[in-house]
Amino acid sequence: MSLDDLLKRNSGLEIAAAVAARQVTIGEIRTGYLAAIAERERIVKAFAHFDCEKFLASTLVVGPLEGLPVGFKDIIDVAGMPCECGSPIYRNYIPRGDAPIVSMVRRAGGTVAGKTVTSEFATREPGPTTNPRDPTRTPGGSSSGSAAAVAAGFLPFAIGTQTGGSTIGPASFCGVAALKPSFGLVPYSGIRATSWTLDTLGFYGRNVRDVAFLAGSITGQDLAVNDGVQWMPRIGVARMKVWEQISADMSEAIVAACDMSKSRGAHVVSLPVHPIFENAYQAQFLIQDFEKARCLAFEIDTHSALLSATLEQAIRDGWSIPVAHYVAAIDAAKRAQAASYDLFREVDVLIAPSASGAASIGLETTGSPNLNRLWTLLGLPCVSVPSLSDGSGMPLGISVVAPMGDDRRALRAASWLQETLSGGARC
Amino acid sequence: MSLDDLLKRNSGLEIAAAVAARQVTIGEIRTGYLAAIAERERIVKAFAHFDCEKFLASTLVVGPLEGLPVGFKDIIDVAGMPCECGSPIYRNYIPRGDAPIVSMVRRAGGTVAGKTVTSEFATREPGPTTNPRDPTRTPGGSSSGSAAAVAAGFLPFAIGTQTGGSTIGPASFCGVAALKPSFGLVPYSGIRATSWTLDTLGFYGRNVRDVAFLAGSITGQDLAVNDGVQWMPRIGVARMKVWEQISADMSEAIVAACDMSKSRGAHVVSLPVHPIFENAYQAQFLIQDFEKARCLAFEIDTHSALLSATLEQAIRDGWSIPVAHYVAAIDAAKRAQAASYDLFREVDVLIAPSASGAASIGLETTGSPNLNRLWTLLGLPCVSVPSLSDGSGMPLGISVVAPMGDDRRALRAASWLQETLSGGARC
Repeated sequence: MSLDDLLKRNSGLEIAAAVAARQVTIGEIRTGYLAAIAERERIVKAFAHFDCEKFLASTLVVGPLEGLPVGFKDIIDVAGMPCECGSPIYRNYIPRGDAPIVSMVRRAGGTVAGKTVTSEFATREPGPTTNPRDPTRTPGGSSSGSAAAVAAGFLPFAIGTQTGGSTIGPASFCGVAALKPSFGLVPYSGIRATSWTLDTLGFYGRNVRDVAFLAGSITGQDLAVNDGVQWMPRIGVARMKVWEQISADMSEAIVAACDMSKSRGAHVVSLPVHPIFENAYQAQFLIQDFEKARCLAFEIDTHSALLSATLEQAIRDGWSIPVAHYVAAIDAAKRAQAASYDLFREVDVLIAPSASGAASIGLETTGSPNLNRLWTLLGLPCVSVPSLSDGSGMPLGISVVAPMGDDRRALRAASWLQETLSGGARC
Repeated sequence: MSLDDLLKRNSGLEIAAAVAARQVTIGEIRTGYLAAIAERERIVKAFAHFDCEKFLASTLVVGPLEGLPVGFKDIIDVAGMPCECGSPIYRNYIPRGDAPIVSMVRRAGGTVAGKTVTSEFATREPGPTTNPRDPTRTPGGSSSGSAAAVAAGFLPFAIGTQTGGSTIGPASFCGVAALKPSFGLVPYSGIRATSWTLDTLGFYGRNVRDVAFLAGSITGQDLAVNDGVQWMPRIGVARMKVWEQISADMSEAIVAACDMSKSRGAHVVSLPVHPIFENAYQAQFLIQDFEKARCLAFEIDTHSALLSATLEQAIRDGWSIPVAHYVAAIDAAKRAQAASYDLFREVDVLIAPSASGAASIGLETTGSPNLNRLWTLLGLPCVSVPSLSDGSGMPLGISVVAPMGDDRRALRAASWLQETLSGGARC
């Protein structure tokens, strides 16, 4: 494959293989990416911090990622780079060390490409990033820059985070793949926190196989998805009340995903939703709001004038939640987490909408995280599969959800689904 | 009670009540503590950072803690104070903001007294702190300064952390009370991490009731222990293999705790230990070592010459653990966590040794965390009860362990046990 084709396809897995086979050099790859960034960053605005010389200077590193550049959401500490959290409160703040996830990427052979735009403290107030598929639309949030950088072909990989729907939502809106891993798979340390019960890292790549390669390389675990595995996942569809919020296009996309999976031979069943999960969905709002207030107490107590009005109000509201309600919500969450294995008694994975619909026009909001709240609360691995789109060509992600701790299954089934939806491997 | 008596008893609960009743002023209290620090800090060496003027300057704050000073282990970010993590790598490092736990203490009316000594990155290499009960002995680690500051009467309260036995061990050695809360009760954010699966905060006070008051004030949850509650806990004793490591004195202390509890009317039973918990105990070592290597990767990759030889080797060893072994250990941990509720089918709480014995002579090691590893891994709330001692008068802590999420029960039963052991409330 030519350098141009490699960069256009932007598959980290293919590029790493080409570098390993000495078909291209990492220098050529970097120069190519830099050209893409030079051409379109003015519009996309994916980066909060980007240093052109450092981007080109870093050399090949030993490891599966072969020196490929990885973007990090600007709430993740990288030694010697600003970490501004999308807030003037942390303007020019330069952490002293790398967050463990950064070290793990470096040890896997990746290099730090720069910091990608986050909404204000990874909450709701948007940053400047636009959707690479249509600059009049939101890229989603809060990992706006990470999703957009991969979608725009600026980088093969990026790291984001998710507390409500902050990784999977932007993946859906921008048309890239993402994994929100099982809670605890990788360390959320050296990273700005907004909820100690919910905060999770997220991995972005162009396709599910790229994401699996990235997650496998970073963790050293056997997560990579192999070609040609003959496996028919048993797929469940559990229509929660929140599905009432999805658009007609997304509803059709789910039906299409089910139909195409059935056509390929998969077993697809509707599952009833136990009230325990509806309760947990409601609990997620309360837990996120309550814990956000604690995690941002320093900022509101010492720099309230530098917070957006929206966030300032959200923090105050969070402090006014009765503690007993929070305790009850945590209890509801724990019950649902324990019951989550029951969701997979008769199926291997669930599929669900990655967002309520396609990215909306306008940059004032980053879209609703509601479709992702439950999976984040339950801590289940969730992969957003790109491939489908609405009538106007805007992407619609389909989530594949697996049991707690089985990120491999989520990735395998998601890769199967991506093949199915893209028509690449019909039976 | 006179000011001198109040300071001598060093009960944060009593002092807060006296301040609230205007029997003493917070200024008098601070001046009293400062005198104690001036007299003995030279020997105890509890503080990594202490600013006398700031200590005296801060005024009464609204909230249950009534302006009382709280010490924070020197791996916890406090805005504007050094956070050196017991390592020259972070010499003069001053974080930009407070960790959420610091904000929560401030909002509960507490003030930051200073930073207390930690072993190197909260691992095994000791800091300079000595045991206030005997300066030739270790105070335990890694929360050495937090336990010692409370034991020495320098502060009514301090915050530590625990990954193996770093909160409960020092409490046992120094003769103070401590709570290692349920995993997730309070946010471990803005705090140096060494294990994302295990790291937990810890609360120190002179007595169990003080610790309950501190934890209740910070979280807003109903954790305070009331006087005169007529309750007979059903107590279980589960002798794990690791109990073979305890000293004759500690063994006698456990027997004494059982006998005195029975005499007071409690139901005390021996419980069998399911192999799932012995497996989980073994898994704890591996998880801690594996994750420590990831959490300290930046330090070994960029500043290895500034690490102790012990820690450097531990990090290298952690990177050499096969990932598959780690995955199996996490699986063993999750199984044991799910099974942990079974431990409490017939009893309210377990009692167990807080350490293998009394603090040993010498400052070269901080003692073994082994007796605490399982409780930390299971995430169960654990309270160390002071009151007993060995033949030479050195303290021996008894741990009270409750089911996941029931910190209140752990504190109530521990308070009951403390009354029982101190003979203060015989039936």
